[in-house]
Amino acid sequence: MPLFKTLMVIGPGLIGSSILRRARRDGQLAERLIVMDRDATVLARVRELGLADDVTMDPADVAHADCVVLSVPVRAVELVARSLAPFLQPGTLLTDVASVRGELGRTIPSFLPEGVEYVPSHPMAGTEFSGPDAGFAELFEGRWALLIPSEDSAAWACEKIQQFWENCGARTKILTAEDHDRICAMVSHLPHLLAFTICDTADNLSGEMRSAVLDYAASGFRDFTRIAASDPVMWRDIFTANRDVLLETLERFIQDTQSMADAIRRGDDDAITAKIHRGRRIRRSLIHNRQA
Amino acid sequence: MPLFKTLMVIGPGLIGSSILRRARRDGQLAERLIVMDRDATVLARVRELGLADDVTMDPADVAHADCVVLSVPVRAVELVARSLAPFLQPGTLLTDVASVRGELGRTIPSFLPEGVEYVPSHPMAGTEFSGPDAGFAELFEGRWALLIPSEDSAAWACEKIQQFWENCGARTKILTAEDHDRICAMVSHLPHLLAFTICDTADNLSGEMRSAVLDYAASGFRDFTRIAASDPVMWRDIFTANRDVLLETLERFIQDTQSMADAIRRGDDDAITAKIHRGRRIRRSLIHNRQA
Repeated sequence: MPLFKTLMVIGPGLIGSSILRRARRDGQLAERLIVMDRDATVLARVRELGLADDVTMDPADVAHADCVVLSVPVRAVELVARSLAPFLQPGTLLTDVASVRGELGRTIPSFLPEGVEYVPSHPMAGTEFSGPDAGFAELFEGRWALLIPSEDSAAWACEKIQQFWENCGARTKILTAEDHDRICAMVSHLPHLLAFTICDTADNLSGEMRSAVLDYAASGFRDFTRIAASDPVMWRDIFTANRDVLLETLERFIQDTQSMADAIRRGDDDAITAKIHRGRRIRRSLIHNRQA
Repeated sequence: MPLFKTLMVIGPGLIGSSILRRARRDGQLAERLIVMDRDATVLARVRELGLADDVTMDPADVAHADCVVLSVPVRAVELVARSLAPFLQPGTLLTDVASVRGELGRTIPSFLPEGVEYVPSHPMAGTEFSGPDAGFAELFEGRWALLIPSEDSAAWACEKIQQFWENCGARTKILTAEDHDRICAMVSHLPHLLAFTICDTADNLSGEMRSAVLDYAASGFRDFTRIAASDPVMWRDIFTANRDVLLETLERFIQDTQSMADAIRRGDDDAITAKIHRGRRIRRSLIHNRQA
């Protein structure tokens, strides 16, 4: 017995189309799949790929769904939710997949019709690719799906969304919006910011040095910058949506970098190795965690 | 017909023991393999692993080799070379594998006996593991081995060292010491410094946040910090040996980071995406280069 009658995915990108593929593969998520997008060529592609039973550009069609997943870029979540609000039916479950929570958990319920349940979530999964062709049914397998319910979220709604992500293969955890945004700034947003920036620094080099960097990139640079191939608009949205926490985390990182630079400048071997050892400890805990 | 009669590897760590394994596997590098180290337990392990025909702690034994590879940490290269100098025979070929060139190309020839040829090299290959157990015969396959000969290096000697690395599976390129150190600061030293530092920043978090980072590290952090598991002493040596160039490269990177932070702070969407796009361009060229 599938979890929902009709699941609507709005924005069939990497995340959205992975949900659709999972739903198709297992038949456990919904009896019927509808996809909404504002871009007709995206919808045509979804049809070609056979990812949906129906596609639509009309917000009014949201009335046919008992679960709606907003898988649009962070900064579009509120706007799209507002456009749907007038058509959402009581008993409908609304979730999103935004990687920055900010005020969404307070703002969105303020304009939803009575009886519509909103349970925000964030599946921590992704690749550097985007669009309906990029998804795959196993994307969420063994990854975290974080739930960020507000105080008003009904227990049954939380449980359903939890079940939804577990059916997608994910492990779930409940967090506050504030903790969520701090953790993601550290484990995801800052690394991406640094990877984009070091690529930018390399791109700014003189022609000869720039091409040398491309030739000899194997030693660290290539692995280090893998995540810098990710979608620019998505990341612009994330950086600006999580601005305050991200800039604070970056500030701490730059202080730590300056302190390492000072140790190198004054040739303080002990301070340098102490920092490297501390860093390695975290890195080794990670390896340990993965094995466990 | 092997390239050398007797190859001596001093310091059978990741690089040294990979050379030995390659020599054993193909029989093309040398008829006989001698390993020197100051640590008796390392030599015992080399014996157990069957990596050498003979092991020694006596610098005088260098007289028996026609090729000597100094695979010791950057800052030990000069010291070890000085201890060997009195025993090196005319016609012997000396190389090293140091990842920072600095003044080595000028200093070392100044105290070598007449007729000993020094051709510095740097195989750009490595993993986060170290020691005689960490090596493998394929480590250099398809990787760059950079040659940094001085003006005095004899042509025959350069050709032999080039042949040596090609027999190890590497591609070779000749660079000046200055270009070498600039390129490596960008493609290797700076990424490592940042990876160590972001791990350090994470390690400095309060207990709860620190353990959350470990839990949710999948999104970027884990890949980004893989290189931070590398050997602390080796990296301390590299950072201090390439101090001036590295700090200059870091300075440029921090400026680029501040400029990205400013764009985020003032919500300048165009500036943010322009930076991300520039970074992506380098990243995509890398992917393209690899496929080519």
